[in-house]
Amino acid sequence: MPVLQEVSNAARDLGILPSRAPPLPRLSRKPDGLSTQEEHREIVVIGAGPSGLFLTLLLARYGVDSSSLLCLDSKPETLKAVHADGLQPRTLEVFQSLGIASEIISEGFHIEEVAFWNPIPAPSATEGEGSPNQPGIERTSFSPDVNVPSRFPFKVTMLQGRIERILQENLHLYVGEDIIRRSHRFLRFSTDENPEFPILVEYEYDLPDGTTEQKSLRTKYLIGADGSRSRVRKCMGLELEGGTTSHIWGVCDFVVDTDFPDIRKRCAVHSNAGSVMVIPRERIPTGEYLTRLYVQASGEVGQDADPGKEKKSADRDRRNAVTLEYIFEQARKVFAPYRIEMKKGTVPDCWAAYQIGQRMSPRFSARTPGGLERVFIVGDACHTHSPNAGQGMNVSMMDSYTLAWKLVHHLHGLTPSSSSGAADPILETFDQERVDVSRQLIEFDAEWAHMLSGKIGSADAEASGLTHEEFFRVFSEASGFTSGCGLRYKPSRLIRALDETRTIDHSAEGPPNGVLVAGCRLSDVKVKRCADATTRHLHDEMPSVGRYYVLVLASSGMLNKSGESQSAITSSISIMQMFPQDTVDLVVLHPLSQRFEWTDLPPGLKTYAEMRTYGLARKVDVYEVFGVPKDQGVIAVIRPDGYVGTLAPLLGCKQVEAYFRDCLITI
Amino acid sequence: MPVLQEVSNAARDLGILPSRAPPLPRLSRKPDGLSTQEEHREIVVIGAGPSGLFLTLLLARYGVDSSSLLCLDSKPETLKAVHADGLQPRTLEVFQSLGIASEIISEGFHIEEVAFWNPIPAPSATEGEGSPNQPGIERTSFSPDVNVPSRFPFKVTMLQGRIERILQENLHLYVGEDIIRRSHRFLRFSTDENPEFPILVEYEYDLPDGTTEQKSLRTKYLIGADGSRSRVRKCMGLELEGGTTSHIWGVCDFVVDTDFPDIRKRCAVHSNAGSVMVIPRERIPTGEYLTRLYVQASGEVGQDADPGKEKKSADRDRRNAVTLEYIFEQARKVFAPYRIEMKKGTVPDCWAAYQIGQRMSPRFSARTPGGLERVFIVGDACHTHSPNAGQGMNVSMMDSYTLAWKLVHHLHGLTPSSSSGAADPILETFDQERVDVSRQLIEFDAEWAHMLSGKIGSADAEASGLTHEEFFRVFSEASGFTSGCGLRYKPSRLIRALDETRTIDHSAEGPPNGVLVAGCRLSDVKVKRCADATTRHLHDEMPSVGRYYVLVLASSGMLNKSGESQSAITSSISIMQMFPQDTVDLVVLHPLSQRFEWTDLPPGLKTYAEMRTYGLARKVDVYEVFGVPKDQGVIAVIRPDGYVGTLAPLLGCKQVEAYFRDCLITI
Repeated sequence: MPVLQEVSNAARDLGILPSRAPPLPRLSRKPDGLSTQEEHREIVVIGAGPSGLFLTLLLARYGVDSSSLLCLDSKPETLKAVHADGLQPRTLEVFQSLGIASEIISEGFHIEEVAFWNPIPAPSATEGEGSPNQPGIERTSFSPDVNVPSRFPFKVTMLQGRIERILQENLHLYVGEDIIRRSHRFLRFSTDENPEFPILVEYEYDLPDGTTEQKSLRTKYLIGADGSRSRVRKCMGLELEGGTTSHIWGVCDFVVDTDFPDIRKRCAVHSNAGSVMVIPRERIPTGEYLTRLYVQASGEVGQDADPGKEKKSADRDRRNAVTLEYIFEQARKVFAPYRIEMKKGTVPDCWAAYQIGQRMSPRFSARTPGGLERVFIVGDACHTHSPNAGQGMNVSMMDSYTLAWKLVHHLHGLTPSSSSGAADPILETFDQERVDVSRQLIEFDAEWAHMLSGKIGSADAEASGLTHEEFFRVFSEASGFTSGCGLRYKPSRLIRALDETRTIDHSAEGPPNGVLVAGCRLSDVKVKRCADATTRHLHDEMPSVGRYYVLVLASSGMLNKSGESQSAITSSISIMQMFPQDTVDLVVLHPLSQRFEWTDLPPGLKTYAEMRTYGLARKVDVYEVFGVPKDQGVIAVIRPDGYVGTLAPLLGCKQVEAYFRDCLITI
Repeated sequence: MPVLQEVSNAARDLGILPSRAPPLPRLSRKPDGLSTQEEHREIVVIGAGPSGLFLTLLLARYGVDSSSLLCLDSKPETLKAVHADGLQPRTLEVFQSLGIASEIISEGFHIEEVAFWNPIPAPSATEGEGSPNQPGIERTSFSPDVNVPSRFPFKVTMLQGRIERILQENLHLYVGEDIIRRSHRFLRFSTDENPEFPILVEYEYDLPDGTTEQKSLRTKYLIGADGSRSRVRKCMGLELEGGTTSHIWGVCDFVVDTDFPDIRKRCAVHSNAGSVMVIPRERIPTGEYLTRLYVQASGEVGQDADPGKEKKSADRDRRNAVTLEYIFEQARKVFAPYRIEMKKGTVPDCWAAYQIGQRMSPRFSARTPGGLERVFIVGDACHTHSPNAGQGMNVSMMDSYTLAWKLVHHLHGLTPSSSSGAADPILETFDQERVDVSRQLIEFDAEWAHMLSGKIGSADAEASGLTHEEFFRVFSEASGFTSGCGLRYKPSRLIRALDETRTIDHSAEGPPNGVLVAGCRLSDVKVKRCADATTRHLHDEMPSVGRYYVLVLASSGMLNKSGESQSAITSSISIMQMFPQDTVDLVVLHPLSQRFEWTDLPPGLKTYAEMRTYGLARKVDVYEVFGVPKDQGVIAVIRPDGYVGTLAPLLGCKQVEAYFRDCLITI
């Protein structure tokens, strides 16, 4: 490039930095004088594990800034590797919608296939179950790990500490390092009549001289992401309900040396000596791959001769008997005749023993005396269960994902009742939606743990229905839930179920995967953007920035100036303008194969959706995936978290308007 | 997850950080006492623009550490936005192979389609060319921007400063901030008889008191990435050869307000008032999209009445006459009757005037008195041309990509002659290969600039063959070159062309795109990894870590224990072991549809390539794409930069061994 002359401008400097999501608008007054005497914050999050960190990140992205937000964590270190390691397809979709998925997807280990191993049937009835001459295990079948459509048709395993680092790096694009205060232990909260900041949070931290100092601060909203022994939950007067089973398991992450052929796949191994789950893990800096084994302890382990011993104490004895040596000894028995060892010269990455149980809190929110829901819990504070199904971190972060936008819409004065001081029906849907998900989680986990810990192939088990076929059925049918992609929220102010105007009928078995259904997440489909003819993922075009989307699927008559499609587009634009700017975005899809010009369409379309108008991609028909007849079209409202809020025919804009009037304040 | 007990180990802490590529092994002695009297470095890079920064990054990744590497840049600022903005598909592939593509691909603007606009033919012959009543422009056709297969079938536009930030962030995963010294101006180099560090580099920098200090340092290898006016090149005694044309163009990046319908596509607009290229650009932090316009200045601009004026000075006058106002005035004439303006309330991001020329250096390397090639140039120091085709930054960075691994193989004592002190034939291929590419670049650019600046639709132009059809043909046929994916290196020590043992014949038109051909880059294909049944991009499995790959495409007889495939696998493993560890990796593909066990294959395969053995992906047949008959198979050697070095039949391992003996030292 010869002889260049250039004039630059300063605004460009911002453009070299990583992209940041735009904040939500704020209509409510922002409190001033936050730094008088007592410290004040609008939102305080207790706990910086995955759910607390993810919540803090989302709040910051939606526009809650450093002066309004604080996260207290009791642990001294920035990142502490603990146990969760699996990310579901839906969690990956959500991370992608936030622009934070790429390192996880490229560096994590992908699980696409599951191998099922079972005892080789004994040659004769006399050498039955548990025989010392048991002939080992054999592979019964393979199955895809995820059998519902997803943008990412696999699970990813990755060190939790690395996921936390990724979240934290993104957080600090929005707010400073001091947003998280480490080694700050939450003690209790109380509420009073303070009209703006009715919650008093007490906490303590260690001084350099070894003494401990107690302090307090005031907040409007408090969220406990402080784990299964949540002190926030206890202060809310709530307890986890449920119980522990007698199943004790050990878990170890290590570099394996084995001739077991499916060691790089997720495996459910049932043997006469007990069960093992294999979870392949990512490559570590040494170049080796980690393997996680969940190993069932035998019923006899750590059993005390004293039958009168208290159960809690007896359970502890049994767990204590599950040592690293025991885990490997037991794994060798299960895998026999295959060899399985820790690779020479390596040490385990971590190991643990645990007892399976399923418990949940009956509610996830509490009102303050003013009648407003101001205290919430997310993550392990709400629900605890076994790690074997790899659900924990996912459901926990999705609690935060559901809460964050509702809380910021409320705080920023965007919901209709947020300025009234009365209870906010939008914010109340958090508890409804997540308690329901938690219940499904607990039920699935109980069934899964039971099947996994049972002895397939034994006469007793067969009699009680515990066969490989039954186990496989439970596994397969749960894929909608375990992938996170099949979740369906119940009808509420935010989910308007179908009515007679709905254009599509479904059979009794329910809609096929991917079809637009109120309560289900919008699935990802490739489309072709009209303005630049580039192929896009629809999910990438509707990022998680806290906005609703009006998604108009125009009909084949779109070019008819007085037809339903153009009317729907024009009406949608009018509806958008009734609500605060940047709370509703318009997305238009069309089914036409011919090219057209902007001038063939309503003039507002180019203004409001030039870069959000799409046709069919070369190999995928979004109308077919979404189950929308091309001659009819449909209008869908997509919630800020990607779930379909409601569906209406092209001429049903009144319904769309009514939906928004319930969710957003008009201007 | 109740009742967890955990023991952690310190090694895990590394695992939370971003992944780093492993360094190449070093067999040569590393110099000690580098910090005596005079400063010493093994490699010094002059210039930290895209080519210098990319080179420094690659050297650091391949294992040249802070004590051996230094980059001097004359500019005071970390990042300076200049003009290049386009990344070709091949550059994206290379970035992907380094794990640095994701932000560019997700945040850059994708160009998939080009629109061609031409003058509306005049209604009658009397209103011919250049008539003031010219009736405007019309769209003649669309074309894909990239019409050769590529993993990324689009170009990406993004602020150069942002690309530099991404490179620099990755660099600092490997070496400290002090690897680049800013505001350090290279003055000259000289050579002497010093046996190890024969190059004396002199430079200067400003002291805080405003004075300038001169210093010198010694180095083994010096690379000039110091732009078109390269001082390194001048010290090598080389000049750019070629010249400038009379075509003057203006360029401006700004936020557009227009009713021109294809403004978000790349457009080549020929009008009776001159030509314009539209390059759509990425979204900026304001949420708006940038547009780049290249606007041809009319022949009359800045013409001086004085016919005796020296050409150089007259050219400068003409360029100076191309102001921001002139660019928009001219653009309005070209786009008429469409409206085109800068969006109200915005300022241009940058603008410039330039004169088209094509010049290149006759050589890109120079020997020191010892007879070794020790001084190199890359990027604009080698070749300059017009920016209109978006090639500059790409070819420049690919110069560095080709040089980096050859230089480190040489420096680390991995090439056969590197320890002999004589000229290294591997290192010498840099000059051969890149001079050839540069020549193609210059030829393409001259043709492209000529076609773009010509007046399509005028009688003169038609007569000289400048028709839309001809322009379109040049555009389409150049796609292999302009995408970077069609590049083919000529036969050399590193490229062994087909011989009679080659299993595939091609028609006279040359091989179809994607087929394995010595000299062409290995194209990306999805495959299914055997060990974990995950679908992978072959490119991701063969990252740019400076290693060669032996790629065995087994035949359908792979399970035959005494067949050609197993013999090829066993021989390949033996060959790998002849050369230093981590310089050759084995990758095996198979065409079988049935599953098999590791025990069905040679025992070394699981040891050396458990995670690099693949079958066919669900929808793609890698054998078809690569043009390899399944009943025959083939062995391909892939160079560290992803180009096919040679091909041999399954029983041709001797050829493979011979290739490696020429490239790598044996152990």
